Amino acid sequence: MRLDLSYDGSGFHGWSRQPGLRTVQQVLEEALARVLALPAEPALTVAGRTDAGVHARGQVAHVDVPEAAWSAARPAAARRLARLLPPDVRIRAIGDAPDGFDARFSALWRRYSYRVCDDPAAADPLRRGDTLWYPRPVDVARMNDAARACLGEHDFAAFCRRREGASTVRELLRLEWTRDAPGVAVAAVAADAFCHNMVRALVGALLAVGEGRRPVGWVAEVLASRVRDPGAAVAAPHALCLEEVRYPPDADLAARAQATRRVRPVLPG
Amino acid sequence: MRLDLSYDGSGFHGWSRQPGLRTVQQVLEEALARVLALPAEPALTVAGRTDAGVHARGQVAHVDVPEAAWSAARPAAARRLARLLPPDVRIRAIGDAPDGFDARFSALWRRYSYRVCDDPAAADPLRRGDTLWYPRPVDVARMNDAARACLGEHDFAAFCRRREGASTVRELLRLEWTRDAPGVAVAAVAADAFCHNMVRALVGALLAVGEGRRPVGWVAEVLASRVRDPGAAVAAPHALCLEEVRYPPDADLAARAQATRRVRPVLPG
Repeated sequence: MRLDLSYDGSGFHGWSRQPGLRTVQQVLEEALARVLALPAEPALTVAGRTDAGVHARGQVAHVDVPEAAWSAARPAAARRLARLLPPDVRIRAIGDAPDGFDARFSALWRRYSYRVCDDPAAADPLRRGDTLWYPRPVDVARMNDAARACLGEHDFAAFCRRREGASTVRELLRLEWTRDAPGVAVAAVAADAFCHNMVRALVGALLAVGEGRRPVGWVAEVLASRVRDPGAAVAAPHALCLEEVRYPPDADLAARAQATRRVRPVLPG
Repeated sequence: MRLDLSYDGSGFHGWSRQPGLRTVQQVLEEALARVLALPAEPALTVAGRTDAGVHARGQVAHVDVPEAAWSAARPAAARRLARLLPPDVRIRAIGDAPDGFDARFSALWRRYSYRVCDDPAAADPLRRGDTLWYPRPVDVARMNDAARACLGEHDFAAFCRRREGASTVRELLRLEWTRDAPGVAVAAVAADAFCHNMVRALVGALLAVGEGRRPVGWVAEVLASRVRDPGAAVAAPHALCLEEVRYPPDADLAARAQATRRVRPVLPG
């Protein structure tokens, strides 16, 4: 079964279950168990395990459930889930997962947005939940110049929280700032996959360039060093949103999952 | 002194001061008294006295303050207010009010937006604070057909909460629905002024037409009846936002205020 979902991350301690804390996974698995009348909560696999405070508009998950339970619940499932779930989690679509589909390992790429308001006079209180209020103006063209050096396959160790044994090589497909509403700059960031903190660390480094605190070439230097730089602060989580996860055509889902699993060993947590 | 401001109405019992309740007016007047070092809180006059839960992106207020206090505070006023005010109120601009400026009576018109999501699959949890989640799809073209009959000067008693002695004649300048994001319909509603509940009552009636529960001509019938119709529910406040207040050129401000005062007697509350 495939689920497409959105959530406001403000009230959650991230996606992954943690004892005693409210997480998206827990809330969803509880609701699914009720709607499908399962004896135990099913285990969801998700495309992007978002951190505490991070939002999603295009999150994707899958779960294996008994055929009979799913068939019985199916006609009313979307409506019943909408009623059971709190308003900060919404189901965009629920349906059969095609053969070989793995929400995490079949994905070709993930795209996040990061939303910054750099003009205090343009600060919109209604969007403060998903916008970073930055105290100094940033130059979008400078940030885009700096970002270009990061595109392609690199070892992003300088922008990742280190984890023993895990590769930090990723392919960055897009990293681009545009002006949205007046005073608002939004980054679109896409990669085959992201290591932990990677989008927020890249955004933090680019903001330092955007406000003129660092030269344009500095981001490329930090990347090449493969060591975290204290000048590149990890940007706040509440302005980050998982916008889209892209999968290959159904016929290629299983092959893609197999290939991805080979490259990135499954890690606990 | 003129103030342009935005606020998220979710945490406020509306604009106007009420004993023991958190209101935008109270929070602002307290902050202004501190920044201007005034012995007592100044009394703000506002363009649109929004109800509990209603938001603003383009609210305008004015206040008379001692020249000396304002001159002294002026250079740092915007920055100090931004720091003092809670994040759900932001100052977009602060400056001298031109001669004859009255935030309420000099206004030519006010424009509100009303934001509706009529597709559960498109419900964005990040915008649930300023969007009505409507359970049935609405037809924007039908709503616009129905809305046209309300344009111009009418007695809007059928769409106003009654108050003794107050006129309910208003000139509706715009009432138009457009599709914004997928699954989202937004109404733009402008009038010289609005009586209490008027936008939300009009929106409630139009939604009944939009979902097919009432014929297109029904809104015009209700308007002509000048009596509130139980079929026209007042739509929820949290999807309503004051977007813009328009004033005449400076030279005409005083004359406009005088003319408006003559037509609409000042009422308590």
